[in-house]
Amino acid sequence: MADLVRTGLSLERELLEKFDETIARRGYQNRSEAIRDLIREHLVSEEGDQNKVIAGTLTMVYDHHRPNLSARLTGIQHSAHTQVLAATHVHLDHHNCLEVVIMKGRCAELKQVADQILSLRGVKHGRFVITTTGKDLK
Amino acid sequence: MADLVRTGLSLERELLEKFDETIARRGYQNRSEAIRDLIREHLVSEEGDQNKVIAGTLTMVYDHHRPNLSARLTGIQHSAHTQVLAATHVHLDHHNCLEVVIMKGRCAELKQVADQILSLRGVKHGRFVITTTGKDLK
Amino acid sequence: MADLVRTGLSLERELLEKFDETIARRGYQNRSEAIRDLIREHLVSEEGDQNKVIAGTLTMVYDHHRPNLSARLTGIQHSAHTQVLAATHVHLDHHNCLEVVIMKGRCAELKQVADQILSLRGVKHGRFVITTTGKDLK
Amino acid sequence: MADLVRTGLSLERELLEKFDETIARRGYQNRSEAIRDLIREHLVSEEGDQNKVIAGTLTMVYDHHRPNLSARLTGIQHSAHTQVLAATHVHLDHHNCLEVVIMKGRCAELKQVADQILSLRGVKHGRFVITTTGKDLK
Repeated sequence: MADLVRTGLSLERELLEKFDETIARRGYQNRSEAIRDLIREHLVSEEGDQNKVIAGTLTMVYDHHRPNLSARLTGIQHSAHTQVLAATHVHLDHHNCLEVVIMKGRCAELKQVADQILSLRGVKHGRFVITTTGKDLK
Repeated sequence: MADLVRTGLSLERELLEKFDETIARRGYQNRSEAIRDLIREHLVSEEGDQNKVIAGTLTMVYDHHRPNLSARLTGIQHSAHTQVLAATHVHLDHHNCLEVVIMKGRCAELKQVADQILSLRGVKHGRFVITTTGKDLK
Repeated sequence: MADLVRTGLSLERELLEKFDETIARRGYQNRSEAIRDLIREHLVSEEGDQNKVIAGTLTMVYDHHRPNLSARLTGIQHSAHTQVLAATHVHLDHHNCLEVVIMKGRCAELKQVADQILSLRGVKHGRFVITTTGKDLK
Repeated sequence: MADLVRTGLSLERELLEKFDETIARRGYQNRSEAIRDLIREHLVSEEGDQNKVIAGTLTMVYDHHRPNLSARLTGIQHSAHTQVLAATHVHLDHHNCLEVVIMKGRCAELKQVADQILSLRGVKHGRFVITTTGKDLK
């Protein structure tokens, strides 16, 4: 049986109440179980073998009128052209773009590309999703 | 000042140790702060105005040899063709596909499309990322 | 029966010989038939109802190091964001990009967007393909 | 100086008149020049070294309700996954899809993949565009 330990956690009352609502809606038995799931999910993306070949997608929203941003994004992706498989760009409105970059390569390399892009000024929101190449899953 | 409450949490010793390692690496002062961030991030995707127009991407990996799966995925996306803007497909190997579906629409509608796809048998891994249309961000 | 007319054509001997080879390979009976097909195909893209709603794709190859080119391409596409559905970008090597822009709209509008992009300096090769929205075809 | 030869051409009067209109609009000096351009353009896609590495895109429109068509399209693309870099799919309406397949490889191989796809029943319209990888162009 798993070796359980107990720890304390302090947080804002409002945050806790909202969290309790969402976990009730999703059918969790208790709060510990829900937090354990958040931690596990977090570890999947943080930990793992940094040398393992994975696939990943980076979703970002930015304003293409920001000077040099388009050029920088393209530049970073080309420098990583062995990892970047394709990027699809949707023009949300006159200003805002959504772009998804699809990558495959060693975990550490993909994270580095994602971090370079997400730290550019003008990228309003971004999220890097690590997934599998499918080979190790049935 | 924020109204702080204290709660207990039980979890596997190994999980806690790994979590402590990653938060140390990322420079968190303490465990509560790191868990609060996970909860906040979770609420961003779970809560929020379900009627708000958002953009989102669904990343998934599947085996296209699974009978009827390609047809079902295409069918669901077409039924939601007012929300689905585009989908890009990369052929990882002979069996495995990575597909990213780009959507825009009311939050609740996009989640429903994502859930329909992620619950299909044969989808090995999937992740729905909610982002902004950029209009409310500077 | 169709009203046939006869016209003369002067061209480089080498060009004519190469053309004769390709039409023989494709099984054409004679040169006139092959040229008529080229003309018909050309008219399909040139003529046609300019107000008709069509779908089209623009394929282009360019060097992203060319100053301002990335920004101009994104700018033109955003100005036409009601016609441009999505663009997918593949990084061929450190310098060269292949980008496909998918559009839907009135024929004349799409041609204008395509012409604006193709006339940019730094676009090495480009081809606009007009296709159908599928509604008028069985 | 180029060695010019003269040949005759018979075609429908209506076709010739329409062709004359479009070439006048585009500013051609005479009919021969316009036909030579059509032939040259045709040769670019037909001839060329079949072993040369090129990039190409295949644009197609199809009805995804056609039984097995989605699965066959995905199957052909996966069998050619060393050539197929990415495919982007747009859902035009409840029935019709537009899909663009981006490929890189030897000319003869890409043509074969394109022909396999275009000959599938249910593909309403398709067009294969050969372009350059950019390496041989300035």
